[in-house]
This record gives sequence, C-alpha cells and structure tokens, in this order.
Amino acid sequence: MTILKIQLSQINPTVGDLDGNAGKILREVKLASESGCDLVVFSEMVICGYPCEDLWLRKDFISACQHQISKICDLTKDLKCAILLGAPTFDLEKKKEVVRNSAILLERGEIKRIIHKKTLPNSGVFDERRYFEPASALSCVEFRGITLAILICEDLWDQRNLFLLSEQIFDFAIALNASPYSSKKHDYRHSAAKNLGKSLLYVNQVGGQDSLVFDGSSFVMNDRGEIILQMKDFTEDSAIIEVTKSGTVTPLPTADKWRSEASNLQSAQIKNQEASGYYRLPTRNNRDYRACVLALHDYIRKNDFEKVILGMSGGIDSALVAAMAVDALGKCNVTLYALPSRYSSDESMYDAVECAKNLGVKLEVISIEPMFEAALFTLRQARRDPQSITQENLQSRIRGNILMALSNDTGALLLSTGNKSELATGYTTIYGDMCGAFNPLKDLYKTQIYDLARLKSDVISQNILTKAPTAELRPNQKDSDSLPDYEILDCILFALIEERKSVAEIAKNFDENLVRRVARLLKINEYKRRQSCPGSKISDMAFDKDWRYPITNKSFI
Amino acid sequence: MTILKIQLSQINPTVGDLDGNAGKILREVKLASESGCDLVVFSEMVICGYPCEDLWLRKDFISACQHQISKICDLTKDLKCAILLGAPTFDLEKKKEVVRNSAILLERGEIKRIIHKKTLPNSGVFDERRYFEPASALSCVEFRGITLAILICEDLWDQRNLFLLSEQIFDFAIALNASPYSSKKHDYRHSAAKNLGKSLLYVNQVGGQDSLVFDGSSFVMNDRGEIILQMKDFTEDSAIIEVTKSGTVTPLPTADKWRSEASNLQSAQIKNQEASGYYRLPTRNNRDYRACVLALHDYIRKNDFEKVILGMSGGIDSALVAAMAVDALGKCNVTLYALPSRYSSDESMYDAVECAKNLGVKLEVISIEPMFEAALFTLRQARRDPQSITQENLQSRIRGNILMALSNDTGALLLSTGNKSELATGYTTIYGDMCGAFNPLKDLYKTQIYDLARLKSDVISQNILTKAPTAELRPNQKDSDSLPDYEILDCILFALIEERKSVAEIAKNFDENLVRRVARLLKINEYKRRQSCPGSKISDMAFDKDWRYPITNKSFI
Repeated sequence: MTILKIQLSQINPTVGDLDGNAGKILREVKLASESGCDLVVFSEMVICGYPCEDLWLRKDFISACQHQISKICDLTKDLKCAILLGAPTFDLEKKKEVVRNSAILLERGEIKRIIHKKTLPNSGVFDERRYFEPASALSCVEFRGITLAILICEDLWDQRNLFLLSEQIFDFAIALNASPYSSKKHDYRHSAAKNLGKSLLYVNQVGGQDSLVFDGSSFVMNDRGEIILQMKDFTEDSAIIEVTKSGTVTPLPTADKWRSEASNLQSAQIKNQEASGYYRLPTRNNRDYRACVLALHDYIRKNDFEKVILGMSGGIDSALVAAMAVDALGKCNVTLYALPSRYSSDESMYDAVECAKNLGVKLEVISIEPMFEAALFTLRQARRDPQSITQENLQSRIRGNILMALSNDTGALLLSTGNKSELATGYTTIYGDMCGAFNPLKDLYKTQIYDLARLKSDVISQNILTKAPTAELRPNQKDSDSLPDYEILDCILFALIEERKSVAEIAKNFDENLVRRVARLLKINEYKRRQSCPGSKISDMAFDKDWRYPITNKSFI
Repeated sequence: MTILKIQLSQINPTVGDLDGNAGKILREVKLASESGCDLVVFSEMVICGYPCEDLWLRKDFISACQHQISKICDLTKDLKCAILLGAPTFDLEKKKEVVRNSAILLERGEIKRIIHKKTLPNSGVFDERRYFEPASALSCVEFRGITLAILICEDLWDQRNLFLLSEQIFDFAIALNASPYSSKKHDYRHSAAKNLGKSLLYVNQVGGQDSLVFDGSSFVMNDRGEIILQMKDFTEDSAIIEVTKSGTVTPLPTADKWRSEASNLQSAQIKNQEASGYYRLPTRNNRDYRACVLALHDYIRKNDFEKVILGMSGGIDSALVAAMAVDALGKCNVTLYALPSRYSSDESMYDAVECAKNLGVKLEVISIEPMFEAALFTLRQARRDPQSITQENLQSRIRGNILMALSNDTGALLLSTGNKSELATGYTTIYGDMCGAFNPLKDLYKTQIYDLARLKSDVISQNILTKAPTAELRPNQKDSDSLPDYEILDCILFALIEERKSVAEIAKNFDENLVRRVARLLKINEYKRRQSCPGSKISDMAFDKDWRYPITNKSFI
C-alpha cells in the first residue's frame, strides 16, 4: 500500500525577508528529511510573507523570490524529501507577462510542478486581483503514486471549486493558506472544510504583519470531516502525518525539540479529547488576547525595535495594553509613564502605580502642568481663551508630545491605547492619545476590553475593572456624560460596522435618535481613523484594510 | 436625415449627497430640455459621486440611489429630452444579487435601458472588483433612429473592447467617465480615444473627493480622431452638440448663463485654434496648480467647513499653500500664523509677513518659546536632556499643538504643507508639521513646488523662490545638510516610486550608495505616510490609494 509521510510546517515568515524566510524553510526541510518524510508542506506565499501588497507589483521583487526558490532547489537536491511551498511566479497569459499566486512542488533540486491559485479574493482585507492573474482551472498532481489536489487558500472556500473537484479523481487535498485571524475564523474554517468530503491537510501562516495577524491553527481533517490533528495557534509549529492512497490519515508524534517557544506546550503531548486532535484551542477571549499579543510582538520585532513605552492613565485601556506589552516583549522592554494634570485623580494615579507594580514594570510620573500652563499662556497671549474642548485636546496632545519626545530620545516605540468604540465615535484626540506606532486595542470594542482585562485580573486590579470610565480632561468628567453606556453603544456600532445595517433597521431595537447620533459620529470621525496608527484585526471588520469609507461623505454612513 | 441634439453635462457631484446630486442633474435636464435636446449625458456614477468606496457595499445605499433614479423619472416624465446617467444598480447573476456599475437611459419617465460596465479597473486608485460584477458583453442601444455604443470609463481603454466594438454596427459612442486627474491624463485620453475610430462623446466628472480630483475636461472627438469640442477643466461645464446618423458632430453655442463660476469663461466664447475646440487647456504646471486648488476647495466645502489656517515658516511650501488656499477659499477664509522659535531667522519672518501682505491675508505671530522652554524643563525634570533630533521634533510638535488648538477653537481646518519629497524621505515630523486636515502639496515633489510657486510670483517673493530650503529647527540648519540636492533626490524618488525601478537599475545613473540610502528612507518612513492627512493626487503614483506598501517590510523597497 502506498503511504506518504508528510510534514506540515507552520512558520512565521516576514514580509520581504526572502533570505530569512528561506532559512526557516530550509531548517524545516532538514527536519522533515531527517524524519524520513516524502514531502514537507508550507503556507501560501511563504517565501515572501503575506501580504506583500504593492511589492508584488515590482518585477525586481518577483525575480528575487524566484531566485530564492532556485537557491532552495540547489540546497535540497540530494534530499528524498520533496517541498511544496507558496510563492509568486511570473507566467505568460496571451503573450503578456503576468504574476500568479502559486504553489511550487520542488523535488530533488527541480521545480516539478507549479500550481496557480484560481479564486483570488478581492474583498475585506484582500486585493489579490490587483496583483495576480487567476488560474483558469484547479490542478491535481501525481506524487509518488498518490493524486493530490492542491488548493491555495480561497480556492478551498469557493463552492464552485468544490463542485469542480468533485468531478475529479484525487486521493486527498492539500491547502496552502495565509488566512488572517478573526474571532470567528477558526470555526468557519473547520465547518467550511467539511464540504470537501476528502481528507485535507490545511497549512496556515502564523505571525503578525501590520494590521493583520495570522493564527496558524493548521489542521488535518479526514474524509468524514473529523479534525484528526490540530496544530497550535499564534506560534510556529510542525507536525508529521502518514496518508495512505485511500486518504486515511494518521498523525505521528513530532520531535520538535529545537523549537524553544513550544517547549512547554509540545503539541504531541497535549491530547484534546473534544476535538480528538493534539492541541486544545483556547476560548475566544483567550484567542483574542493572544492575537493582540502576537500582533504587537511581531510589529515591534519585525520592525527591528526592542522596547515600548506607553502612557498609563490608571484606566482599563492602558492597563490592558501594558499587560499585553509585558506578555509580548517582557518586563524589561516596557516603560510606563503616568502624566497627571490638574484633573487627574489620586485614585487614577494609585491604580496606575499599582498596575505597574503588579506587572513588575518601571513607571515614571511626569506632570504635564508646566506645558499645559505654557500652552494656556501662549494662547491667551494670542488673545484666545481656549474653550473647554480645546483645553481637553491640549492636555491629550501635550501628553502625546512628551511621550513622542521620550520615544525619540530612547528609541522605544510608543503604543497607542484607543479602543474601537472610541475610534468609531471620535472619542479620542488626534495627535494626542492617538499618537503611537501600534495600537493593540484598535479592533476591540470597549465591552471586549473588559472581557480581555478580566483574563489578566492578576495584574489589573478590581478597581480598574469596575470603576466608571473617564478621560479626566475636565473636573469630574465621565465617558457616560458624552456617550451612551458602552453595552448599548457597542451593540449599535456592531450593527453599523460589522453587520452594515441601516439606521432604520437598527432603530427597530434602539432609540432612533441615538442610532442616528452614533451613525453620524461614526461618519464624521473617518478623518481621524485615516490618521490612526495600525493595530491588529481581531473582528470581521477592523478599521484598517477592510474598512474603506470615504471621508467626504454626505450619506448617512 | 436623423439628427440628435445632445447636451453633455459635466457636473460636480458630492459622494453620498443623493438629493444634492439629483438636484444638479434635474437642473441640467431642464436646461437641455429648454434647448430642445433629445438627450442629456452625465458622468459615471453621477447619482452618488465617485468613488463611494465601501458605501457601495451597503444595500441601503444602493437602494437609496435607485430611489433617486425613480424620483428623477417621475419629475421628467413629461419631457421629450431623455437622460443618460451613471448609477450603481442591483442585478441578478446566477440567482445571486450583485451590484453593477451602470449607465441608465431614462426616457419619458421610464427606465428604457440599463447598460453595465464590462471592464472594472482594479489597479492604481481603483478597487472596482471589490464592489461590482462586470458585464459579460458591451452594449449598443437604439435611440431615436441612431445606434449608440455606450461605454463606461475603463470600457473605452481596454483594447479587447475596441476589438469587440469594431465587429458591431453603431453610429457613434458615448462614454460616461469618472476619470481622476493626473498631470499626463489629458493627453492620454485624447490619444487613446483615437483608437475607437468613431465619433465619441466623452463626459467626465469634475470635482475633488478626498485624495482624488476629477478634472472634467470632457470632449467630443470625431471619427477622424480630431477634438471638435473641448470642455473646461476644474469647473462645471456643459455643451450642446448635434450628431447625425453618420456620426458627423457639430458643436452648438451653449447658453449657460446660470453658471456663475463660468461667467467670465463662457466656453462658447473661447475659441481654441490649435485644438479646434472651444476651450484652450492650460499648461501642465497651470493644470497641476488648479487641480490642487479645486481639490482643496472641495475637501473643505464638501465637509462643511468655511475657513482654514496654516503655519507660515517663511519658506516656499507654506507660501504656496497660502496662495492656493486664497485662490480656493478667498482671503477672508484664510488665517496665517507665524510660530517663531529661537532658531527662526529674521529673514524667514520677514518673508512670511511679506507673503501674507501680498496675499492680503491676516498673519498672527505666536512665539513657541514658552512651550518649548516648558517642554525642555519637563523632560529635564524626568532626567532627560533631549537629543538634538528630539528637540527638533518637539518644536515642530509644539507648533502642531498650537495650530490644532487654534483650529479646535475657531472651527477652521488646519492645512498641512509637507511636500512629496519630504513625505517620501521622512523629512517631516509626525504629529508636528504633518498635523492637518488636508495637504495640497502632498503629491508634488519639491522641484515641482518651485515650478508651481513661480506661477504665483505676484505673491511669492523672489527671496522665497531662491533661498536655500531650511526647517530652522537648529542653528544654521539647511535641508542640504541631510538630503541630496532636490534635483537629484526627486529624480531618484521618481524612479523608485513612479517607475518602480530597482535600486540596481537606478544606480546606473546615480551613485549606488545614494540610491540605496534614498530607497531605505522611502521604505522606513512608510509608517509616517500611513498617518498622513489626505492630499490630492496629481501624479501617476500618489502616496494614497495608489500606493499600498507594507510598513513591516524587509525588502529593499
């Protein structure tokens, strides 16, 4: 009976780091080869990382990717183990040179076969039709006596493709993916994959790339739609399976000792009875938290920075970002600054200090009063007695100015802490608290901030979790002075943003004037979001590549 | 002999302002009807403005557009004059509801025909495949004894379409367009349209929409490829022509007295011998200048603001923005602020005051020293003696803070003045001089700034035009201390950005280390550009919707 031994390698490539990515690939190939594998499978576009955006429009970039493939060929020509990996390729379409999103099968130092992606997603965060020509058909490949259907990401989710595949004869399918995380994505993948009706090896990218984070969570499903192998999420991982010609898949224990990150979470050791796989996926809040942490980690590290700073108000948002920063980068790489004004309460300062202590992180206190006084003096000299809202923004922008000076002076990146509810309604100061290189909370509604902060109740005190939210920019200010309760606000925002419902539809469940007011706030604050820093997508509709509304817009949303 | 009398209506719609756009359409229909026209033709998506971006994904929005079409039908059912206009429409494709980019022919209160766009652009600034399903074929329409080929924008530029059309029998073609301005676009349109080989009525949108500006410049070409009617650029315009069944087109004088903007530039009165059309298009620098002015005007006005402010350094960039602001919004709506520091020279202050005087605009002087002193004090209190670069950024951010406070307090929008060379190389301070609602110079290289400023030498002094550029953030600073000469820098940037050339290619003409350094600056400053305010696209590759590079990027560009 023909049996293939296949390694699934879920690695974290960096966009544009062709040498580094090839190095990771070669390390995995070596391991697979040492384990006697016939084939090692990588994710979509693993050679260049995903998404490369307009780099894919550059000829020199595609050529450099091809050059790396040749190098990998050369270095693996003596191995029995073949390689299936994702890369961009040049091709000719009606005599015109085009670029395709491809899977390349390398065997004994040669390119044996190039399979092209057929279904190019062009919605949400995806712009693949900007970059690639689609294949006209799906491809099956003969490999060591077994027929493999090879799919690239969206190819697997297109019902028409599954219909076409059902007419073809193949033993099992392999899907190369760069599927970004969102809270619901994992369940979606499992349930959609069942429609294939054949055994499936699903290898996904892991890691953060600007506003996207890829969760990995690669898996193997048998032809009865059961998950028989679940790989880890938010970390690199690999696994080895055996597949027979009839498509029967058996997972083998993995010896991934070199992978230090995974040392206390060896996939082969964690049996998950419910999913009958290796690794038990954590709950949604837990996943969301870890997605934010990995996105933050990779943004900082892949951009060659070590340290971060942030302003601690004593509120829940900055406390959560501080906790995430410590989990992502380690205590010694995080410095917190409390920047009190005349309106800051003792309670807030106490909460900020306490949280820093719990986290074991340095907190410095810098009063903004001298600069605030100087700003008021300056404006009054110019015959301006600034209004209350101007004074509020001034304080926030002075904090931004101090934090950016500290960032410039120390080389640590500033983190921004505005949540999705605030960014949606404009309850945030542009060039003030919106200053920063990355915002781990950008795609979390305020109500979700509470859910995630509760996971960190060891470092975030009960008082921070339960007190009424306030920006403390004027005496006795509360968020609830200007905004409805976050439970209601977030429901309305979710319906407007994620569900694209009309005001009329939403007004069936909420006060129409309130809905109209929230929709108006959402619309008129688009200009602020355009100037916001990146933050990782967690939801199905983040304020980033999947949200493309005009600023100039007279329509009600 | 069958003759059609047709009005071409080049109007300035506002995205999402369905009532307002319908009002403008109806006014044009009335004029056309009074002139005895058979047909009035509008631009692509005139009902909703272009581009609506993700508004097009909202069902309620498409329905609202359809509702406006019904209203226009009702209000024009007694007119002999038919209407051809662009709008999004619902359609069924394999039982699934899809949205299309359509041209709708209305006649006597009924929808006579809906023609769908076939070639959906998905490159540059365009994302049409995100929103629309393409038509499977091009359409010809019988109208009052004449056969019209109706094309929507990109349909006209696709060689395959022209080949398909050459197989069909039609009398002449009408193209509905929303074609954004870029310096070279006009010549491109004329030369590409010649390939049609039939008479063509080309109606384009005019007006600014966020980072795009549409120049109008509608025209009529005869079947010999000669422009026989050239409509105005950067302003609303209309014209009436007669077309015979054989495709012979004759322009008629237009009586557009109601259009006050055009009163001193009546298209029918301006004969252009060279182009044998009505209106002589200005030179490239002149067009670029007017594009910036219209983009600025429409951004401010369509977002319901009246007034703007900006910081005057005495340098050429702020002087040019001030001149544009006055041309766009009028003297009384522009206030200038000079914000000197210890490093500002008397010469700069003199130049700023002089320029304001020439423009007839108020200039206030506000020293940033008290805030700068307070900031240095604050940082030294925190045991930080800020480095030179930190101090430079502090000054720029204090200016940003003061200007934003003045903006908040007066309701005037702040204009940003960073040019394309600065944004490309990061020679600009995020949250400092990058503060602002709109940046009219965003897509102009420094060398182009000089070209455009020379057009305004009546208000921009010779000294401003000729002195060495400096940011004056430290003693005796000059731009040339940190950057190569702008003539060289701009050439390298143009090759990297507009021409997508590799470092190796460009190094054939310039010092390789210099090219490498410029490419690196371009890459590592992507994070700043992501947080920059909008500014109008003038070139073929603006730092906005047509520039989509990752921030995290280990590739050389």
